[in-house]
Amino acid sequence: MVAPRRPEASAAGGLPVAVDAMGGDNAPAEIVAGARLAAQELGIDVVLVGSPDQLGDTGGLEVLPASEVVAMDDDPGPAVRRKKDSSLVRAAEAVRDGRALAMVSAGNTGAAMASALLRMGRLKGVVRPAIATPIPQLGSHPAVLLDAGANAECSATMLVQFALMGAAYAGARYGVEDPGVALLSIGEEKSKGSPLVKETHAKLAQLDGIRFVGNVEGRDLLHAPADVIVTDGFTGNVALKTLEGSLRFFMDALLEVFAADEETKRAAEVLLPRLAPLAAEFDPDGVGGAMLLGVDGVCVISHGSSSARAIVSAVQVAHDVACAGLVDRLARVVAPA
Amino acid sequence: MVAPRRPEASAAGGLPVAVDAMGGDNAPAEIVAGARLAAQELGIDVVLVGSPDQLGDTGGLEVLPASEVVAMDDDPGPAVRRKKDSSLVRAAEAVRDGRALAMVSAGNTGAAMASALLRMGRLKGVVRPAIATPIPQLGSHPAVLLDAGANAECSATMLVQFALMGAAYAGARYGVEDPGVALLSIGEEKSKGSPLVKETHAKLAQLDGIRFVGNVEGRDLLHAPADVIVTDGFTGNVALKTLEGSLRFFMDALLEVFAADEETKRAAEVLLPRLAPLAAEFDPDGVGGAMLLGVDGVCVISHGSSSARAIVSAVQVAHDVACAGLVDRLARVVAPA
Repeated sequence: MVAPRRPEASAAGGLPVAVDAMGGDNAPAEIVAGARLAAQELGIDVVLVGSPDQLGDTGGLEVLPASEVVAMDDDPGPAVRRKKDSSLVRAAEAVRDGRALAMVSAGNTGAAMASALLRMGRLKGVVRPAIATPIPQLGSHPAVLLDAGANAECSATMLVQFALMGAAYAGARYGVEDPGVALLSIGEEKSKGSPLVKETHAKLAQLDGIRFVGNVEGRDLLHAPADVIVTDGFTGNVALKTLEGSLRFFMDALLEVFAADEETKRAAEVLLPRLAPLAAEFDPDGVGGAMLLGVDGVCVISHGSSSARAIVSAVQVAHDVACAGLVDRLARVVAPA
Repeated sequence: MVAPRRPEASAAGGLPVAVDAMGGDNAPAEIVAGARLAAQELGIDVVLVGSPDQLGDTGGLEVLPASEVVAMDDDPGPAVRRKKDSSLVRAAEAVRDGRALAMVSAGNTGAAMASALLRMGRLKGVVRPAIATPIPQLGSHPAVLLDAGANAECSATMLVQFALMGAAYAGARYGVEDPGVALLSIGEEKSKGSPLVKETHAKLAQLDGIRFVGNVEGRDLLHAPADVIVTDGFTGNVALKTLEGSLRFFMDALLEVFAADEETKRAAEVLLPRLAPLAAEFDPDGVGGAMLLGVDGVCVISHGSSSARAIVSAVQVAHDVACAGLVDRLARVVAPA
C-alpha cells in the first residue's frame, strides 16, 4: 500500500478546483458563469485563472492572475513554452504546487495536455499520457474510451498501459470494481486487426490484474460490453468524432422533420418530452469532459464550445476523481515493477 | 487510350451477372428471390451459382452448378483453397473465364475477396485490392470510403493507390467527373495524424490527375466535402461500423419512443412517412453493397444479412459499373508507369 502523497488524497475538499477562465470558444463569460454555478450548486471551491480585469463579476470567487491566453488555434507546444503567464499554464502550476486540487480547461486541447505534462510532469512509469473520454451507455455509467487523440501513433506497451490506466479511472470515476476492458478492433477474433492490435490483444490476455473481455468493434461503442475501451489515439479520435457526427446528423434530420409543418410540430410536442432523457444522456455538456491520464495531477479537458453547464459538470468530475484518489490509483498501476 | 480488353467493355449486357446463391445469412431463398427480381424488374441477365437441388424455384434462371458452400464463419484463405467447387469460387471463375459480366456475393467477405483475388487475379500494378463502401450523403450521391477493411495494415503507397482507384470508381459508379478525394485524419491540418497519414497527405498533395481536397475527420463522414474518402482498412472498418452502430442505436431508440403509448403511436403515424425517405437513404439494402477494387473483374460484396432487395441493388450496381468499364478505368490508373 502506497501512502497518500497528494493533497487530494489527504485533504480532499480543502483545496479549490482551478478553472482556466480564458479557455474555450465562450470564454470568459460562460466559463466564469459555470465556475460560479459550480461553487453555488455543488459547494465546491473554485479558483478562476485568468486576467482579473477581463472576468467580469466573479461572484466573489478567488482569482489566480494570469496575463496571457493560449488561443484555440495556437500551436500547442510553442504556445505553452512561450506563454508562461497564460491561464492554462498557471492552472497546471497551481495543481503542481498543491494550491489546487485539479484543473479544468475548455481551451486548446493540445495546449492543455502540454501544460499538464510540462508543469505537473508524468507519473513514474508512464510512457505517454492518454485522453480518456466517456461514451454514454443507456442504463449504465459511460464507457471510458482511451486514447481519444493524445497519441496518433502508439505501441502495444502504450496500449497495455492505457488499459491499466483506463481501469483505474473507471474505478475512481464511476466506482466500478473489477472493470471489464476491451480492445477496439475490426472483428471479435484475436486473429483480427492490425499488427498493433494483435500484439496488444496477446499482451492483455496474459496480463494479471485486469479483466480483459476481448475485442469490440465500432458498432459496439454505444452498448459496450466493457467499462473501458482501449485503442490508439488515431483510431479513437476517428471513432469518437464519427459517433459525434452521426448522432448530430440524426438529431438535425429529426428536428427538421419535426419542424416541417403544423401537424409534425404537434406530433413533436408529444414526443419531445420522451426524447429529452435520451438527448440529456448524449449532451456533451453533461458528461464532464475528457480526462488526461498519466500526469501527476488531475486535468479535465472540456470541449471547446463548453457552456456554463459543461463547466459545472467538469468541475464536479475534477473534484470527484481527485477526492477518489485518481492520481494515486494511476500511480500504482503504472509504477515500474 | 487502352483498347477494351474485357467482355463488359465490348459486349456489355451480353453476359449475365453471376450471383452466389449460397452466400449470406438468408441464402439461398432470399438470394434466389433477389436474382429473380433483378432479372424481372431490371431486365439484367443473371446466372445463379450453387447446388441446383437446393435453390428451389429459380424462375427459369440459368444455374451454374457448384457443389460446395463457404460458410460465413469459415477461415477465408483455407476455405477458398479447399472448396474448389464452392459457389463463391465458381462465381469468380465465371468472371475470369468471360462467362459472366460480374459477380455478386452476400457470403463470407474475406472468402469473397480471396476468391476474386485468386481466380480473377489482381490488376497489373495493384499492391493490394481494397474494399470501397458507399456512405450515404443527403441530397447527393454517396461518398466512397476505402479501404473499408480489406487491409488492416497499409503503406502510404497503398493509400495513394486507393485514392486513384476510389476516384475511378466514383466516376464509373456515380458518373462523377473530377471527383474530390479526401484523407481521413484527426484534424484538417496536414500536420495532424499518424505518420502514415502525414506521409500519404504529402504524396496526395503532389499527385497529378487527382483532385485532393485535404484531410477530413470522423464527424465529416455523413456530409463529406469529397466524393472519395481514403483511409487504411483498420480505421475505415472501425469508422464504418461506428457509423452503422450509432445510426442503428438512434433508430432503435426512436422506435422505442414511438411505441411508448397510444399518444406517441399517433404522433409516430404523422412522422413516419416523413422519416421514410431518410430511412431509405440509410437502408443498407439499397446502397448496392461494397466493391472490391483492384482485381481483374467486378466483384460486389453485399452484406451478410442481405434481403432479396439488397441482391437486386447489388446486381444493378455490378451490371452498371461493368458496363461503365470500371475494370478498364482501374487498370489505367494503377498501371505501372
